[in-house]
Amino acid sequence: MNLKTKSFRSVVKNYKAVFFDAFGVLKNHKGLIPGIEKTFDYLDEKGIKYYLLTNDSSRSPEALARWYQDRGIMQVTTDKILSSGMLAMEFFKAKVANGNAVAYLGTESSAHYIETAGLLTVAVKNIDLDNIDHIESFAFLDDEGFNWNEDINKTINLLRKKNMTVVVANTDINYPVSKNDISVAVGSLADMVENIIGKNFIRFGKPDAQMFLLAFERALQDINVKRSEILMVGDTLYTDIIGGNKFGLDTVLVLSGNTLPDMAHIRISSSGIIPTYVCESAVVE
Amino acid sequence: MNLKTKSFRSVVKNYKAVFFDAFGVLKNHKGLIPGIEKTFDYLDEKGIKYYLLTNDSSRSPEALARWYQDRGIMQVTTDKILSSGMLAMEFFKAKVANGNAVAYLGTESSAHYIETAGLLTVAVKNIDLDNIDHIESFAFLDDEGFNWNEDINKTINLLRKKNMTVVVANTDINYPVSKNDISVAVGSLADMVENIIGKNFIRFGKPDAQMFLLAFERALQDINVKRSEILMVGDTLYTDIIGGNKFGLDTVLVLSGNTLPDMAHIRISSSGIIPTYVCESAVVE
Amino acid sequence: MNLKTKSFRSVVKNYKAVFFDAFGVLKNHKGLIPGIEKTFDYLDEKGIKYYLLTNDSSRSPEALARWYQDRGIMQVTTDKILSSGMLAMEFFKAKVANGNAVAYLGTESSAHYIETAGLLTVAVKNIDLDNIDHIESFAFLDDEGFNWNEDINKTINLLRKKNMTVVVANTDINYPVSKNDISVAVGSLADMVENIIGKNFIRFGKPDAQMFLLAFERALQDINVKRSEILMVGDTLYTDIIGGNKFGLDTVLVLSGNTLPDMAHIRISSSGIIPTYVCESAVVE
Amino acid sequence: MNLKTKSFRSVVKNYKAVFFDAFGVLKNHKGLIPGIEKTFDYLDEKGIKYYLLTNDSSRSPEALARWYQDRGIMQVTTDKILSSGMLAMEFFKAKVANGNAVAYLGTESSAHYIETAGLLTVAVKNIDLDNIDHIESFAFLDDEGFNWNEDINKTINLLRKKNMTVVVANTDINYPVSKNDISVAVGSLADMVENIIGKNFIRFGKPDAQMFLLAFERALQDINVKRSEILMVGDTLYTDIIGGNKFGLDTVLVLSGNTLPDMAHIRISSSGIIPTYVCESAVVE
Repeated sequence: MNLKTKSFRSVVKNYKAVFFDAFGVLKNHKGLIPGIEKTFDYLDEKGIKYYLLTNDSSRSPEALARWYQDRGIMQVTTDKILSSGMLAMEFFKAKVANGNAVAYLGTESSAHYIETAGLLTVAVKNIDLDNIDHIESFAFLDDEGFNWNEDINKTINLLRKKNMTVVVANTDINYPVSKNDISVAVGSLADMVENIIGKNFIRFGKPDAQMFLLAFERALQDINVKRSEILMVGDTLYTDIIGGNKFGLDTVLVLSGNTLPDMAHIRISSSGIIPTYVCESAVVE
Repeated sequence: MNLKTKSFRSVVKNYKAVFFDAFGVLKNHKGLIPGIEKTFDYLDEKGIKYYLLTNDSSRSPEALARWYQDRGIMQVTTDKILSSGMLAMEFFKAKVANGNAVAYLGTESSAHYIETAGLLTVAVKNIDLDNIDHIESFAFLDDEGFNWNEDINKTINLLRKKNMTVVVANTDINYPVSKNDISVAVGSLADMVENIIGKNFIRFGKPDAQMFLLAFERALQDINVKRSEILMVGDTLYTDIIGGNKFGLDTVLVLSGNTLPDMAHIRISSSGIIPTYVCESAVVE
Repeated sequence: MNLKTKSFRSVVKNYKAVFFDAFGVLKNHKGLIPGIEKTFDYLDEKGIKYYLLTNDSSRSPEALARWYQDRGIMQVTTDKILSSGMLAMEFFKAKVANGNAVAYLGTESSAHYIETAGLLTVAVKNIDLDNIDHIESFAFLDDEGFNWNEDINKTINLLRKKNMTVVVANTDINYPVSKNDISVAVGSLADMVENIIGKNFIRFGKPDAQMFLLAFERALQDINVKRSEILMVGDTLYTDIIGGNKFGLDTVLVLSGNTLPDMAHIRISSSGIIPTYVCESAVVE
Repeated sequence: MNLKTKSFRSVVKNYKAVFFDAFGVLKNHKGLIPGIEKTFDYLDEKGIKYYLLTNDSSRSPEALARWYQDRGIMQVTTDKILSSGMLAMEFFKAKVANGNAVAYLGTESSAHYIETAGLLTVAVKNIDLDNIDHIESFAFLDDEGFNWNEDINKTINLLRKKNMTVVVANTDINYPVSKNDISVAVGSLADMVENIIGKNFIRFGKPDAQMFLLAFERALQDINVKRSEILMVGDTLYTDIIGGNKFGLDTVLVLSGNTLPDMAHIRISSSGIIPTYVCESAVVE
């Protein structure tokens, strides 16, 4: 292990494709990471492909891409986005019978994306617990859009009344909302419910291999590439780096997000999660 | 292990004192367990002392006792009540400096009881996160009395800003609200927060020895008794029975609450938690 | 959910490929499941492809295949075998620098397979803790082949001295050794070590998506197949069934192994893991 | 929180009694902490009582006391020793029927102490699994004295064959054997077995209240003392300090053992476990 940081340019130039984590790498609570537009220009110039892997089921890939385009990075198109919400949507498409419904906790817009699979969705608040025959599956989509006290308790009693497959479409336990403050993510709400009812939920999101597989399959549609030719770039050891390592990718830990420069050495040593490289940020100077 | 049930009368008559769990033993969602008044009459007649051990920090011992008296069981006086809330109150009394405050999640009435220790309390919703010097400790008291989404997130950011001792005054993860339905208890909310911020909370409540010690010390004020002369009566293997066993008491599992008759044998076998006796209920016929 | 069991023939005939768990499905502690040879003949006749997915890193795919051939099932050739040990071997091949060594707990034969990747291996018992510069990674391969007390303690101190990536090549926590008895699997030893040193190991094996991906990629070399056209057959809800469900496969729970007929309904209800079908066994009558 | 360390003398002089953790406070892998004899002389001179609380079930209180006396500290007599093994012994005395046996993992000498309760003990290696009617309970006593591979597997199959109460007489997960090296403690072996068989063991040792209660009851035999007049001195936040805090004692973290001076501030902040004082060591200069 060598904690001497390298320039991102010197690292990325040796790969055919890059997988980026979004928050802490490309953006933060204030907006785009300053200068990150130069990275996309550099990658385009070199012919290096790029994809964004994000634990997000609150918005569709279209909406996620639009955020970058609205800020002038036109290269981040929908086909570059791979989200845990997409895995959830694919799951329900394969597993839920025609005419049946997926109950959910989240915003209406998080459910709209599931509906593009041709499924019905029903918000927990709109469920009649005495009439649940048509509800076949359950999704934790977003931490907003519902009354936590009422609807979490209603969810628990729904899942006790009827045995059904439960999907957690974002495994993160919290997310940053400002420089110092965080907020409970839907993954934590799902953990609490799972612990109370004692059942086993299906979780989608980094560090799970299925997120990396989704992005790898997408990359293979664009270029002929081996895993060893792909670089995973992230700010979080426990999701981006261990997941990338395990999937057989080389990994870069950037110090522009969750892992701060003065703690990086201690975090790597105490976690045992060792990135291939450490860079100050993903900005190509 | 013998799952042939015994009559409660034949068991209890051999002890000098009884520790009762409340919910599922003396009462349920409808009110008193039918016939339970006969049990108190029988114990009085035989001179057997009794105490109620309850994981409850939502009400004062006075309020807990009044519930029984309002239903005609005048023998359940305040001095018979031992609650996890009392342990929390004692803790803050010993540990919080004069003039400082305990922040809390719960109802106002749950906080009033803490204030009888001479402490200030402040509800999370009333905290100004830029002015927290006087807040020295934190208490999870009740699952009601606050906005879950707003105030749980505010709690997390308070505990990230200032390192303080956190007390969970009720370790239960859920509680019954009707024949079929349950509700998230404050213990589950505390588990979620603890997992997100990665700190270690102090928990009070069965099966922890401190609850049994509190009741044992109370009993010693009334009579000269050894642990082997006390019977713990409960409906939950994971709190009442394992806690009683470990503290050196004999234990009765009653089948009038959480552990249903047809599952008792499987639950005992699969948990490895073995009560001394199994009785249909705590009613003395 | 429908617990009426179906005949395996009526289920499997609708798929292009089958993924079989081995233990409890094709074999048990006595040898082959009686009649299972008819299943392979039937699949060949129908042109349905089959693959074996096994959490096993104690033997090479060649040795695993030979076991079936020695018992007359010549169709189980090396290319039909997908093991968690193969994932570990691929990982080290990609991640360990030339000339460096992988330290391991396991038998010599379990290490030989890793060496086919061109790597050096060194058993923990042969390590000099004062000379570990050449050791770059660590593997938990098998629960046999070493002195548990001495070598587990030595492993802990090795991993405390030098930060390195640790791979658990079999996530199972135990395995059956006779009708009634089980033995600790290397996955449990790894869990214990991980808990003591507080680091994060990389695990390979069902239910993780990477095992299913390995088999899916192998199947794609043989036929053009979609996930929805593949059937996963297993005896364990927590590995085979939840893993198959999540990867988008249809699943069969067979009652010839870990999940006994009289407990299947309770296990499915209490776990929330719902197979697409339940069959008595994988034998085609 | 104030990390300015105080002199131990200035802190301890305000208390009527002191509870000492042993390892890291009074002794280390080399022997006595240099100068610690002056602490005992000072406490005697001031009339402050002292007791040793140790998670140790490998030796009797007599043997534990003799270790100090052999090194010249004659004041540490048997009655000053409170060990988790004593709690296990008391438990079996109360709970195991006459004539029945306690099976155990550990050394013969660890079992001898249990036998002073008038019980039979039988080492796992001497058990005939076809003849276990007389075995009523199980104890994890020590990590030595048996073949880990054979006897841990035998333990698992014994506990699967017969449902019995299992006691873990030392909850520590590891212990130091030299300046840099540690060894797996019996608590870790018990955790592994518990996880495999899915049952609930009874654990004795700090931070559990029962250890502090045992010492408090012993102190009450010597002097009239309140909890607020007792000081707990330890080197480990997760056992000594959180346990002492919760029991209502004031606490001192010493930096002569597990918690090193340069990490103390980070450990306290990240754990949320806040000692009343921090001292370099327990030596009274």
